[in-house]
This record gives sequence, C-alpha cells and structure tokens, in this order.
Amino acid sequence: MKLTELYSHVKKDLLQIESELEQSISADHPILQKAGSQLLKAGGKRIRPVFVLLSAHFGEYDIRSVKKVAAALETIHMASLVHDDVIDDAELRRGAKTVKAEYDNKVAMYTGDFLFAKAIEMMTHVSQIVAHQVLSYSMKEMCLGEIQQIKEQFDLDQNIRQYLRRIKRKTALLIAISCQLGAIASNASVQLQRQLYRFGYSVGMAFQITDDILDFTATEKELGKPAGGDLKQGNITLPVFYAMDKIPELKGNIQRYYQTWDEDEFSGIIAQINKSGSIQKASMAAQSYLADAFAAADQLPAGQARNSMIKIAKYIGKRKF
Amino acid sequence: MKLTELYSHVKKDLLQIESELEQSISADHPILQKAGSQLLKAGGKRIRPVFVLLSAHFGEYDIRSVKKVAAALETIHMASLVHDDVIDDAELRRGAKTVKAEYDNKVAMYTGDFLFAKAIEMMTHVSQIVAHQVLSYSMKEMCLGEIQQIKEQFDLDQNIRQYLRRIKRKTALLIAISCQLGAIASNASVQLQRQLYRFGYSVGMAFQITDDILDFTATEKELGKPAGGDLKQGNITLPVFYAMDKIPELKGNIQRYYQTWDEDEFSGIIAQINKSGSIQKASMAAQSYLADAFAAADQLPAGQARNSMIKIAKYIGKRKF
Repeated sequence: MKLTELYSHVKKDLLQIESELEQSISADHPILQKAGSQLLKAGGKRIRPVFVLLSAHFGEYDIRSVKKVAAALETIHMASLVHDDVIDDAELRRGAKTVKAEYDNKVAMYTGDFLFAKAIEMMTHVSQIVAHQVLSYSMKEMCLGEIQQIKEQFDLDQNIRQYLRRIKRKTALLIAISCQLGAIASNASVQLQRQLYRFGYSVGMAFQITDDILDFTATEKELGKPAGGDLKQGNITLPVFYAMDKIPELKGNIQRYYQTWDEDEFSGIIAQINKSGSIQKASMAAQSYLADAFAAADQLPAGQARNSMIKIAKYIGKRKF
Repeated sequence: MKLTELYSHVKKDLLQIESELEQSISADHPILQKAGSQLLKAGGKRIRPVFVLLSAHFGEYDIRSVKKVAAALETIHMASLVHDDVIDDAELRRGAKTVKAEYDNKVAMYTGDFLFAKAIEMMTHVSQIVAHQVLSYSMKEMCLGEIQQIKEQFDLDQNIRQYLRRIKRKTALLIAISCQLGAIASNASVQLQRQLYRFGYSVGMAFQITDDILDFTATEKELGKPAGGDLKQGNITLPVFYAMDKIPELKGNIQRYYQTWDEDEFSGIIAQINKSGSIQKASMAAQSYLADAFAAADQLPAGQARNSMIKIAKYIGKRKF
C-alpha cells in the first residue's frame, strides 16, 4: 500500500493545497519560478499538509483558512530543503567553482528566503496570533537544529540526548506543529491542540529514526544514495550510538575512517553496526515513539480523521524505504 | 553634525531597542551568539528603528509594542546583511575553499534564517494582522530584489526603471514599512500610515541613490572600499545610466572592461562618468525624492516627531559619506 492511498479522506482538499502551492511558487521572476516548479514536481509525501487537514477536522473545519496553513507548512518544508542544498551544491563543484555555481547558490539562498517569506504571508490568513507564535518559534528551533547539526558533525563524543534534540528540531517539530496548527486554525480546544501536537511529535520522531535506520538497511537503489551515507557525511545517528555502546573498538574505527576515508574500513564499520543488534534496538526506539503516537491518537475523538492518522502512523512504522 | 545627534527625541527609547536586540540575538548556541554580537557591535545607523519610534508618535505611542516592531525591523535588516555576505565570503576563498569556510557559510546562512524567524517572532507581539501582511509582503519583495540584482549584474542593456525597482526592493521598502508599521502598531489612522509610508519610501530612495553616488565621489578611505566598487562588481547604478546616455562610447568601454579587467581602462571609465555631469544629474534625482519626502512630512501633524523626521531627511541629502 502506498502512503498516498491513506490520504483518501483528504484527497479532494489536498488538490486545493497543490494549487495553493503552485500559486505560492509563481513569482514574477523566471529563475525563482523554475526552482519552485522543480520542487513542486519532485512531489514528496505531503505529510505536513495532510496532518494539517486531518487535524483541522477536530475543530470547525473551514478549508479556506486550513488550506493556507497547510500550504504554508509545506512551503516552509520546501524552503528548508532549498537551504539544505545551498552549500552541498557548492561542495560538488569544489575546486572548480564556476560563476554559474556561485550564481546558482545565491539564487538558491534567496529562493529559500522568498519561500519562507511566502509561507509567513500565507499564514497571515490565520487571525489567531498564537498560530504565528507557534510557527515563528518552530522556525527558530529548526535553524538552531541546522546549526547544531553542523557543529555536531563528525563528533563521536556526543550523546543520544543531542541526537534526539537534533531530530526533534530538524524533523519532528514541523510535523508536530502541522497537527497543532490545523487544530488552532479550526478553533479546536487547547486540549485537542496539545494531543495533536503530541501525536505529530511522536510520529515525527519515529519517522526520522526510521529514516536513519533505512540509511543502513535499505539498498543503494531504494535510497537513491549509497548505504551508510549519513555516517560518511559525519551525521551520527541512533544505530551508531547503540553500536558504539556495544562494540568498544567501533568508535576508534570510525575515527580512523574519518582520517583515512578508506572504503574497506568503512565496509567493516557497516558490517559491525549491522551485527551489533543496534538496528533492532533503534527499531524498538521508533516503535516506542509510535506507541506514544497511538496513545495520543486514542485520546482523540473517534472518527475518520483519527482513523486516517493512525493508519499513516502505522505505515511509517512499517515502511521499508 | 552626526546622524545620532538627530535622534535626541527618541534617544531614551532607542536604548530599549538596543537591549531588545541584544536579547533577540542571545541564543543558546555559541556560534550564533558570536555572529549576532558582532553584528550588534558593528552598530549601524539604526535608521529603521528610529523611523518606527518617530512614526509611532503619530498614534497612541506605547513603547511596549513599538519596541518589538523596531527591534524586528532592525533584525530583518541584520539578517539580510548576513545573507548578503554568505556567498561573498566564499568568493574570497575561491580556489582554496576549506572545510572551515564551508562551515562558516552554512552557519552564516542559518544565522540569517534564525534572525528572520526571530524577527517574525518579535512581531507576534503586534496583534494587528495587517502589520504581518505588510511585513511578509516586503520580505518577499526584498528577496525578489536580491534575485533581480543577481540577474541584472553586468547587464548594460537594462534601463533606469529596472534600477529604480531594484533599489526600492533592496532599500526603500524596508525604510518605508518602518514608518508604516510604527503607525500601524500605534493605531494611527490609515491616512497617516500612508503618508508615513510615502515619507519613508522617498527617504529610502534618496538614501540609496546618495549611496550609489558616493561610491563614485567619496575617497577609498571614506568608503572603506575602493571608489567605483559597485561598477566593478557589475552593479549598474544611476550615475552610470546617465553617463551612458550622454557618452555613446561609454557602454562599449564598460563592456570591454568586463572582458579585460584592465585597471587603466577602468580609471578612464570613472573619469568619463565624473566628467559627464551624470553625478550632478543623479544628485538632482536624489533631491527630487527628498522633495517628495518633505511634501509627505508637510502633511503630517506638526510636532517634535515631524521635526526630527525632516531633520533626518535633510541630513541624508547632505551627507558626504
């Protein structure tokens, strides 16, 4: 079953979000238009707008305001992807940096800025000031998460708490506030807002831990990038923490790899991680967050919206790539 | 007379803005803290917060909300400076791009993002939704201005309308909405909001044209960078448009310089521009915008706030560097 098949409940309204997104991207500038269209066509799971729509069903559902919130959150997600790519792009051309590459990077940075501003503008259709407070706080935290990730890259002395804080900021928070803002925009009770935030936060944590596991277990073809890519890039994820706890010499091996970049050494490291049982332990951590998500969902009023949310959470727990 | 001496009317409240800015920059991350502190210490004219404070005196002045708006606008200004520097920094190290340089650029980009988000957060202290609409629209336009500048760099076939649109987006708009938002935050009438916007827009245009003139007329010591730097960087400004109108061969000379980067050629170009009378013509354009600013100020209620605004506008018309 595909994720999009789980969206049946909100399928019609999701089409309105797509057209909102198309409008949001359409600027009077051709380069920006092109960058935006590519982002739109690339698709993505649209998990944030779907959670906004579903959460809004727990209040007085009005597609006119809800669609603005949903499009705004997806636009913020796209803007953060654009900014993530800015410097990576530059690295690919390292040593042979052309004017064109500089130009592209500058444009990418300002395209990201434009999309952030556009998202804020869409949010002004929501009159509840608390919605703006929630959004701006989370945007700040997302930036701190990016800076934290840069700082903690290649650092093998960090602890699991730092990892959890990082994935909260980088992934879980935006999913959590997608649920919360859907509820705020539709004037659901504060209690419902909190339960939906908790559901989204837990799903988001499980989602990112699963992503980090798949980086070790999925094939290169499934991932669209080489396995173990996170570790190669110095991004220390949950399976690595668990494996280092279990195998005392692993930390030294990884440190040596970061000096030598020896591919045989790296294959050995991947084998050690896979054999250590750390993948299973990380899966259990993801399942534990999912259990939190189900517990939060259980407290929500029964109905189609809740059913869809539970199905999506279950899908996330089972996905193989 | 120094610009800051003209601020006497709002001196005490400006201190509160400084402490707001210090708080806004203080994040739990040392790198971000450092970047922010450097920006703060660098100072700057604080022209945007001063205009917010002065404009707010035309309504029900309440420093508690007004100071948030003032700090937010200065933070947006600082964020845009940080993003302006991101790629420039990279260029300095071209060919010898270190991990440290990459790191700094990434951090700079996310520091800018953080400051933008922080500014939006400060603005949530303002309940008028129109304030948020004005701000997000302007942030979008500023990004479009940056992208427009990248696209129009080195393009000698562009026209003065493009130049004016660019400086509106890059400079005048933020000064215009500083005045407008001060009025909105203090519940001044819509008519006053418009007059103050017009005053700020005209001052902003005069300010940027003056800046573009000084790039040709001030000494390297006064500017802190070589004279004619804008033209060298492919930024075509008002004196160049006027000079190209007057001297038919100038366009070809500049085009040749952009191929050869011959410094003697460049000195000849600067001499041609200075002799063409284009500097005087550009000064007249700046004076014309200032006349618009005075006309807008004349329609404002008389008082100390209006007097200070007129004095600041006069200062901008006379500054030599």
